[in-house]
Amino acid sequence: MNVSQRGRDIQASPIRKLKPYADAAKAKGIKVFHINIGDPDIPMPGPVLETFRNWTQPVLAYGPAQGFLELRQAVTRYFANYNIPLDPDEVLITTGGSEAIHFTFSVLGDVGDEIIIPEPYYTNYNGYAAFAGLKIVPLPLSVENGFRLPPVEALEALITPRTKAILLCSPNNPTGTVYTPEELDRVVGLVKKHDLFLVGDEVYKEFIYDGLKHKSILEYPEIKDRVVVVDSISKRFSCCGARIGMIITRNKDVYAAALKFAQARLCPPSVEQMAALAAYNMPMSYFQGVRDEYDRRRNVLYDGLKDIPGIVIRKPQGAFYVIVRLPVKDIEHFAVWLLSEFSLDGKTVMIAPAPGFYSTPSLGTDECRIAYVINVGELSEAIRVFKAGLAKYQALHG
Amino acid sequence: MNVSQRGRDIQASPIRKLKPYADAAKAKGIKVFHINIGDPDIPMPGPVLETFRNWTQPVLAYGPAQGFLELRQAVTRYFANYNIPLDPDEVLITTGGSEAIHFTFSVLGDVGDEIIIPEPYYTNYNGYAAFAGLKIVPLPLSVENGFRLPPVEALEALITPRTKAILLCSPNNPTGTVYTPEELDRVVGLVKKHDLFLVGDEVYKEFIYDGLKHKSILEYPEIKDRVVVVDSISKRFSCCGARIGMIITRNKDVYAAALKFAQARLCPPSVEQMAALAAYNMPMSYFQGVRDEYDRRRNVLYDGLKDIPGIVIRKPQGAFYVIVRLPVKDIEHFAVWLLSEFSLDGKTVMIAPAPGFYSTPSLGTDECRIAYVINVGELSEAIRVFKAGLAKYQALHG
Repeated sequence: MNVSQRGRDIQASPIRKLKPYADAAKAKGIKVFHINIGDPDIPMPGPVLETFRNWTQPVLAYGPAQGFLELRQAVTRYFANYNIPLDPDEVLITTGGSEAIHFTFSVLGDVGDEIIIPEPYYTNYNGYAAFAGLKIVPLPLSVENGFRLPPVEALEALITPRTKAILLCSPNNPTGTVYTPEELDRVVGLVKKHDLFLVGDEVYKEFIYDGLKHKSILEYPEIKDRVVVVDSISKRFSCCGARIGMIITRNKDVYAAALKFAQARLCPPSVEQMAALAAYNMPMSYFQGVRDEYDRRRNVLYDGLKDIPGIVIRKPQGAFYVIVRLPVKDIEHFAVWLLSEFSLDGKTVMIAPAPGFYSTPSLGTDECRIAYVINVGELSEAIRVFKAGLAKYQALHG
Repeated sequence: MNVSQRGRDIQASPIRKLKPYADAAKAKGIKVFHINIGDPDIPMPGPVLETFRNWTQPVLAYGPAQGFLELRQAVTRYFANYNIPLDPDEVLITTGGSEAIHFTFSVLGDVGDEIIIPEPYYTNYNGYAAFAGLKIVPLPLSVENGFRLPPVEALEALITPRTKAILLCSPNNPTGTVYTPEELDRVVGLVKKHDLFLVGDEVYKEFIYDGLKHKSILEYPEIKDRVVVVDSISKRFSCCGARIGMIITRNKDVYAAALKFAQARLCPPSVEQMAALAAYNMPMSYFQGVRDEYDRRRNVLYDGLKDIPGIVIRKPQGAFYVIVRLPVKDIEHFAVWLLSEFSLDGKTVMIAPAPGFYSTPSLGTDECRIAYVINVGELSEAIRVFKAGLAKYQALHG
């Protein structure tokens, strides 16, 4: 009577591994700045809140497995603003972006099949690859060149007969990189050449700075049938807890298979689907204010960190994260030390060690992800504390 | 570039297979009585609605992977009313009962392992067994004896070295049977003898009639560590669309493994968790009114059907379903015929053919599940229409 092998094998969330140390610090009365996570603090759009407050429906019945039609229509209107024509039947509402990843991985490959993902990458891909039995083949990128994609040969060298798909996340969590149209072109060519699917994680679409534009993989008509986009309202509308995401694909076989998985779990949450509907009905101008706020934070973070001796950092172009290399030998040790042995004026910081974002062993051991999802005042103070901590740690352990 | 084998293999929901026929009937202006599904029409408790209407929290942040502590505490108070002592750390909130089944199957067995389930059974077990690669070994029960469990030898004969668990659903969907303490004792003995887990689906706990009492498998201290209960607020509080369920287990290894799967999907929906909290804070007296209403419907249904010539029906004791045998050769054909070729006074009925609830081929081909989740007036009329349809069908195809 033992739990399953997979139940023993599945990785505990690397982001949550440090939580006990943070809890202990807080219990000692230390204020912990959370620059480790991307849980938005920006209020959600007013109409979302109003959806809850005006709720009158007395029974919460099962909805359609693919999500409410009104919501799927609103999503197509949102994409039309980006000149991406979609039909509501090309949108499948999921319980969070997590479930969109889960279904997509399950539909694109069988046990033992491979999916190529540039690393560092969003850790939860690992959990769903494990669920689906897919092997993630990492394409290592480097902080020195801002995590740009390598020449096509380096990518092509990873393709095997078991390769089913390539996944690109842009704007990228955890690196903050936004792929250029030229980088996308390179991957699109490969996908065509090797008869693969292309998965896009575009949940940070609106979080893009310096006047850059996000190009979606949905904008390549020549690979129309090969594209599956996983999306979510969590970051876009500050609704992480709503658990509303979606799969977008014009491939009818992929949609039909994902729908069967969706039927097994009956439907996504109904009240929060209606909240998502209100969110998608927001004018595009809504994003400008949010983007400006994150842009300010980005500048505060980058300007605060860039001159630290020994740091390697490239200015992030999108999302609200950056991966930096630090002059430390063991980032996990440093992260724990910050929480358990250091404080400045009763304050410390929690960072996300980068090894959790790499699947190649030994990569990222001197890197961490920093998220800029606290307000400018707190962020400035967090940077002051972080710099003092790093200096002290180097003196002790350098 | 094909979808995965599993994506092609996974069964489309058998309940939803008839939907196009129902839609076509409705398009012709025919009223369709839905006695095929268990989507409660009883309004949810007032405080649940008030939770939405009083919502003020401006950001929907990620919650804990195991669910909010307040909700898990409320669940333990609810179980305390049944004299079942639980700790909040023995309750893991999931996104619907569906996810509770998904995690439980994934944690208790590996690919190729077996789980014994009396059939007919809730069809969605199939989807999650497929996801987890578990083999469901059905224990065929029979309408003639009201789907009672067989002598222990019949059950024991199904146990192999790959058997990891037995699953019991009581009160049962789709049969309406409530297992007696003696039936449970039989299974508990086997579980101990063969070192297995026992999974209980107890989502219909309160829907129990004739003064019967529900005995939970959590009430057997001698198999404390072997028990995993999957539960849901969907039926209990008429909140199917809320997608709040839970796993209850005192086995710390099972809990820890399920929690790792839970971390991969981040958290259950937060607004609807708070709605569930309001629901679990309802006094136990709340259930009396709901039970009385379903009991009236049960009597109307049973009294309306029992004298049909050739029918085999046992009065259901719990849940809000019953499986009946009809004097027809092919229940699927009859179900489609009712929707596409029959109406009485502009009305017809939709039933759920039983083969979808059996995994042994050829079982249930003359049986259907009828749900009594419409009000007494509509139910009476549905029965009148159903009886006329059956008589006409027999005359044409009998």
